[in-house]
Amino acid sequence: MRTAERRDRLRATAAERGLDAVLVTNLLNVRYLTGFTGSNGALLVRTDGADLFGTDGRYVTQAGVQVPDVELLVDRSTVASLAAEAVRRGVGRIGYESHDVTVDGLAALQRVLADTAAGGTVPELTSIRRAVEAQRLIKDDDEIEALRRACAIADRALAELASEGALRPGRTERQVGRELDARMLALGAEAPSFETIVAAGANSAIPHHRPDATELRAGDFLKLDFGATVDGYHSDMTRTVVLGEPADWQREIYALVAASQAAGRAALAIGTDVVAVDNASRDVIAEAGHGEHFLHGLGHGVGLEIHEAPSIGPLGTGTLAAGMAVTVEPGVYLAGHGGVRIEDTLVVTADAPELLTLTSKELLVL
Amino acid sequence: MRTAERRDRLRATAAERGLDAVLVTNLLNVRYLTGFTGSNGALLVRTDGADLFGTDGRYVTQAGVQVPDVELLVDRSTVASLAAEAVRRGVGRIGYESHDVTVDGLAALQRVLADTAAGGTVPELTSIRRAVEAQRLIKDDDEIEALRRACAIADRALAELASEGALRPGRTERQVGRELDARMLALGAEAPSFETIVAAGANSAIPHHRPDATELRAGDFLKLDFGATVDGYHSDMTRTVVLGEPADWQREIYALVAASQAAGRAALAIGTDVVAVDNASRDVIAEAGHGEHFLHGLGHGVGLEIHEAPSIGPLGTGTLAAGMAVTVEPGVYLAGHGGVRIEDTLVVTADAPELLTLTSKELLVL
Repeated sequence: MRTAERRDRLRATAAERGLDAVLVTNLLNVRYLTGFTGSNGALLVRTDGADLFGTDGRYVTQAGVQVPDVELLVDRSTVASLAAEAVRRGVGRIGYESHDVTVDGLAALQRVLADTAAGGTVPELTSIRRAVEAQRLIKDDDEIEALRRACAIADRALAELASEGALRPGRTERQVGRELDARMLALGAEAPSFETIVAAGANSAIPHHRPDATELRAGDFLKLDFGATVDGYHSDMTRTVVLGEPADWQREIYALVAASQAAGRAALAIGTDVVAVDNASRDVIAEAGHGEHFLHGLGHGVGLEIHEAPSIGPLGTGTLAAGMAVTVEPGVYLAGHGGVRIEDTLVVTADAPELLTLTSKELLVL
Repeated sequence: MRTAERRDRLRATAAERGLDAVLVTNLLNVRYLTGFTGSNGALLVRTDGADLFGTDGRYVTQAGVQVPDVELLVDRSTVASLAAEAVRRGVGRIGYESHDVTVDGLAALQRVLADTAAGGTVPELTSIRRAVEAQRLIKDDDEIEALRRACAIADRALAELASEGALRPGRTERQVGRELDARMLALGAEAPSFETIVAAGANSAIPHHRPDATELRAGDFLKLDFGATVDGYHSDMTRTVVLGEPADWQREIYALVAASQAAGRAALAIGTDVVAVDNASRDVIAEAGHGEHFLHGLGHGVGLEIHEAPSIGPLGTGTLAAGMAVTVEPGVYLAGHGGVRIEDTLVVTADAPELLTLTSKELLVL
């Protein structure tokens, strides 16, 4: 199973750092390492291979199906019970996720360890930082397949709505947003990836506009930023269309953003610094004199979270590697007039990046 | 504005505890205190009334609309920038949410305070524990109205699906679940409150079953546990129906759970211990010899979270007060056969509790 491979990689990291076990509390990391999708679970990965998965009574059946290959510990207080069990089984040094455990949570953990040790040796807690997130940065085939399906659902939902005439003047942003969400669910999405953005006319100049009662009007831009979740993996796409014949200024900024987006995609290669990717795309917009109309980062990783590493922007750090799944989403926003953003989800490969979002990027005139 | 009243209450708590300010980082608590619905925001509530709301550049327009009455600080690192500003403005003692701030987050906060103080007095950080959650325990009229609308959407979605014949043999749990979700969205829900549970036949004996490809069959129980979100507030309801003429055992356990649920509702009164409420409902089931088939708690608070305080169960603590919004959801689960759960969302009042879930609790035969 993929999840067993993932746990083995974490085990190797733990051993390198001189730990006997890692207590994984971040629920998405638990899901990544076990396949468990419930709302209460924690995992103890031990360097000796005797892992332990904790959940409560509601999830015993589900754990049997989803996590058949890890010993199960049933207790409402998953983290405390795993910690206590670690003491009983003689674990000496435990890594924990200091970016996930709260201040109160760490105090409770230390209390449990001390109480269970009852005068004996209390295990030492050491932060493993974002060791699991570091693994999650590179997607394996199962993850890429889930992203591919999530992207396909978003593509199809938009295509269906457009062909049915759902994106027409007189309808409201909110109606369109709800239909897009409902269509993605009907097509097999578990949920929308995030709160769908539908921004008509001047609202399209607001990067993150919440759909409201604004009506779509002929001649306006309509910006749609949305995605679907499949097996927990999030797709993310944005398209900007025009309702009726585009004006010259609309054609111009659309062409500019499309060229910038193409440049950003072309820069996605193994070993490239994320800042260089952002620059490749941003320079196109800056050279056209619209630098101050593109103030957000170029893109971000996607996976079990809608925003995860790497961050592709002026303040990003690190270089790209094969298997990273990222968005490329430049925009130009002219306050009070309208804005364009074009966004795809892609996977970095040894060749050209694999485009998961397949909807055309020609200016769609509805 | 309601949110100003809520901030004033927190301000009073802060003053009582000898703090100059409270740094609110939990995003739901920030929403509760400001109305802000974005994904990045933090709030500094000061005892002198000069509050400060922090968010990043994406949300400047939105903050202007949603939080017009609090001074805005725009910075990508909301928490760090609020902390630094607190130092500059001479705040001496800062309360923080130790159940929300992670171990890494506290270390970063302490660094910012020390760096900004630059040799001067570094503000002292003190946990305020769950002070904002304590306020959220009692819902005000705006919150109850949102819950009422959320419950009404769930009621209506189920009624529509039932009347359209969507709950019929041959369909799969997954189909029904997706239709229920899509219908709630079409009726104005922002999202389902949680992953909708549709459990047919023997699956209905699994308290938290994920909808799968199982087909609905004549004569089987069909258990539906779902809810809608409106203005961030979550409704939660469960109904169990029978597809075709019920067998005697089905009528029996249905009547038992209905009686237990009625007893639980009747026990919801100001000043009643939550354990006594749980007992009132549980005793009915235990006396019928089914105590071991009802292993979860009786209910929980609902609001900006689907599960929040108070927890109504054998291990709960505290007493009920007017304005608490809670679920009452006993169940009897016969492994391999089927189970029944009946759940309403209600508000505790000085009189009988207000029932927000209005769907009939008669055994519905489809």
